[in-house]
Amino acid sequence: MKDMDDIAAMMAGIGARAKEAAAELACAPAHARQAALEAAAEAVAAGEAAIIAANAEDLAFGREKGLSSAMMDRLMLDGTRIGAIVSGLRAVAAQKDPVGEVIAEWDMPSGLNIRRVRTPLGVIGVIYESRPNVTADAGALCLKSGNAVILRGGSESFHSSRAIHACLVQGLKAAGLPEAAIQLVPTRDRAAVAEMLRAVGTIDVIVPRGGKGLVGLVQAEARVPVFAHLEGICHVYVDRAADPEMARKVVMNAKTRRTGICGAAECLLVHRDVAATLGQQIVEDLMAAGVEVRAEGMRGSRPATAEDFGREFLDMIIAARVVDDIDGAIAHIRTYGSSHTEAILTEDDAAAERFFARLDSAILMRNASTQFADGGEFGMGAEIGIATGKMHARGPVGAEQLTSFKYLVDGHGAVRA
Amino acid sequence: MKDMDDIAAMMAGIGARAKEAAAELACAPAHARQAALEAAAEAVAAGEAAIIAANAEDLAFGREKGLSSAMMDRLMLDGTRIGAIVSGLRAVAAQKDPVGEVIAEWDMPSGLNIRRVRTPLGVIGVIYESRPNVTADAGALCLKSGNAVILRGGSESFHSSRAIHACLVQGLKAAGLPEAAIQLVPTRDRAAVAEMLRAVGTIDVIVPRGGKGLVGLVQAEARVPVFAHLEGICHVYVDRAADPEMARKVVMNAKTRRTGICGAAECLLVHRDVAATLGQQIVEDLMAAGVEVRAEGMRGSRPATAEDFGREFLDMIIAARVVDDIDGAIAHIRTYGSSHTEAILTEDDAAAERFFARLDSAILMRNASTQFADGGEFGMGAEIGIATGKMHARGPVGAEQLTSFKYLVDGHGAVRA
Repeated sequence: MKDMDDIAAMMAGIGARAKEAAAELACAPAHARQAALEAAAEAVAAGEAAIIAANAEDLAFGREKGLSSAMMDRLMLDGTRIGAIVSGLRAVAAQKDPVGEVIAEWDMPSGLNIRRVRTPLGVIGVIYESRPNVTADAGALCLKSGNAVILRGGSESFHSSRAIHACLVQGLKAAGLPEAAIQLVPTRDRAAVAEMLRAVGTIDVIVPRGGKGLVGLVQAEARVPVFAHLEGICHVYVDRAADPEMARKVVMNAKTRRTGICGAAECLLVHRDVAATLGQQIVEDLMAAGVEVRAEGMRGSRPATAEDFGREFLDMIIAARVVDDIDGAIAHIRTYGSSHTEAILTEDDAAAERFFARLDSAILMRNASTQFADGGEFGMGAEIGIATGKMHARGPVGAEQLTSFKYLVDGHGAVRA
Repeated sequence: MKDMDDIAAMMAGIGARAKEAAAELACAPAHARQAALEAAAEAVAAGEAAIIAANAEDLAFGREKGLSSAMMDRLMLDGTRIGAIVSGLRAVAAQKDPVGEVIAEWDMPSGLNIRRVRTPLGVIGVIYESRPNVTADAGALCLKSGNAVILRGGSESFHSSRAIHACLVQGLKAAGLPEAAIQLVPTRDRAAVAEMLRAVGTIDVIVPRGGKGLVGLVQAEARVPVFAHLEGICHVYVDRAADPEMARKVVMNAKTRRTGICGAAECLLVHRDVAATLGQQIVEDLMAAGVEVRAEGMRGSRPATAEDFGREFLDMIIAARVVDDIDGAIAHIRTYGSSHTEAILTEDDAAAERFFARLDSAILMRNASTQFADGGEFGMGAEIGIATGKMHARGPVGAEQLTSFKYLVDGHGAVRA
């Protein structure tokens, strides 16, 4: 399988089977997709020992390769984590089915009745790093939305992903759905990724899920549409009209609840009028909680440098800067943000309105923690990621966001004048 | 301006000004955009003589170049056509403003109030052939939806487009909006198109409007997202349960009302059970109306060859084929269709349902002419084209389809557990 032609042929076969499965899935009933997900959950629960054994192989490989402890942690599966995969599959199974939903319906004077109806996108390619649970999450969301999916996980999680994928296929079989509805690329060769990115006419959209390196590669090389998932360089702006207690509480949560997720705050902006008082207090709160504050215009752990702004730390570090006013905050975010999530803390309605109108991030929040940037917290059930592009899907990408639509028109014999 | 570096620099300047204008437009009030469109309509009406003079230059150039009479006809402007441009601008001005519309709103148990609000996409690039009226249509729809636009019309319509563009800019000025909101590429050099297709980070989406050659070039070369507008290879399937009179009337309209539009029928499929009766009658109706019928399984003007299926004639020609049953029709359309518009003629609800469920064209019609595939006929006002892709916009692309959305979240101090 090292030969490039072999990889190309293999991926063409996977693509053709995915397309065929997608056509079948698009008219399969909702209850079959739901049954498949429930059966897959059963299979994962029953297969715990086998999955953990496969994971042990990956962990040994990772240790040999010298993976960082953070990466080893993401790779590791135990009973608790497998339990979470099982309940994730069940939760997606129980979600409302998006396919066939009538999004809008209207009549025209010509006599046409027009319905806009949700349809699957077709074939989705998911390229992700070595987090075996994404195999289940992504597979489940794509199936729920009636799409066939081609999964390409990180090479370090190869065996774990294969074991989980086998359970998903068991679920498909049990429900009488085509096995090719969820395929896992059976090679670690990176040439397979390149083939996916060029699969125009076969793969309808690529969802990259991972760090800056992966997403950058996908965006640079892809010839098929991509749901952009850039970094989460989330800003929190403390306005002069902020409620002080609320601001302290929200900033602390936005930075420290979990530092490794894309909704974690990476930069604190403070209005000049409250910089020495509330702003300084918040900086001290953060430092007391063990956060390194790289500050400009305030006393922090150390002065900020130019590189600290627009940076995704994903760690107990935050950049902080004093701005002259709300427009200064907006200008800073326009320059350094990644269009993911930004929050304003203010009791001033006009300030909040200006912040909401003049910024165009996927998610804008008032008096709430940026850590809420999450499909579950938005009521969408699971998510395959947070899209930062403007096209098609934006913000948390759940099953509904993995659909398109078509128009169904009933004319009773209407002809156009 | 022939030098490639000069073109690149010029296009970078246009792009930068468009981005700046887009940021301003995104927070400009709806009434300013409306006023600009009304003032532009006035300017076109007042500038009729100048536009016709500019058009005369283009017509002379076209004659010299030996353009076909169809192309010359599309290029030509007269008082009637300029009147249509004026009323088109006024109609878009009067349409409902999509920007800021709350598409959905809900509350979460965590205390979050979440709104999904419509926003402009940003900067739209429109690449079109030598139809000067598209300058007005596309400029108006992009402005209505709060987007900045970079227009690149066909080289044969260079002077006409420039004269119409000048009127649009007058409208922008009158309403106090940035002139760079609607820019026309001021060169005939094709290198400008290549620059647009590569303008990642500047142009948010490219809308190609024109024939197969243009759309193919754009899809092959574009590095920015594209609203796919493939050919309209529209099929009409006459089921065995068709109402005969309705079928005769609808097929005639679908083929002959206007043959040059993308919603014109290009292929007639007839159920075997009614091929010799109703099917043959329809073929004879068409031939009597001057249509060349290239038929398989029926007597037509001449036998169909393999090349006649999946072909966009845009002329008084239609392919015709007998199919064994509705699944034969569906299989034919899946093989030869372009996912634009297909119609079924039937009184059988189950057949219609099967046709609607198993095909995934942007528009599926029952007992209605495919010529209704049009933004105006769908109640969307004007359209910039019919998208045949599955991503973001599908079917007629009006002002609403040129928008994205963002989430506005109000949390009253909510922190995530």
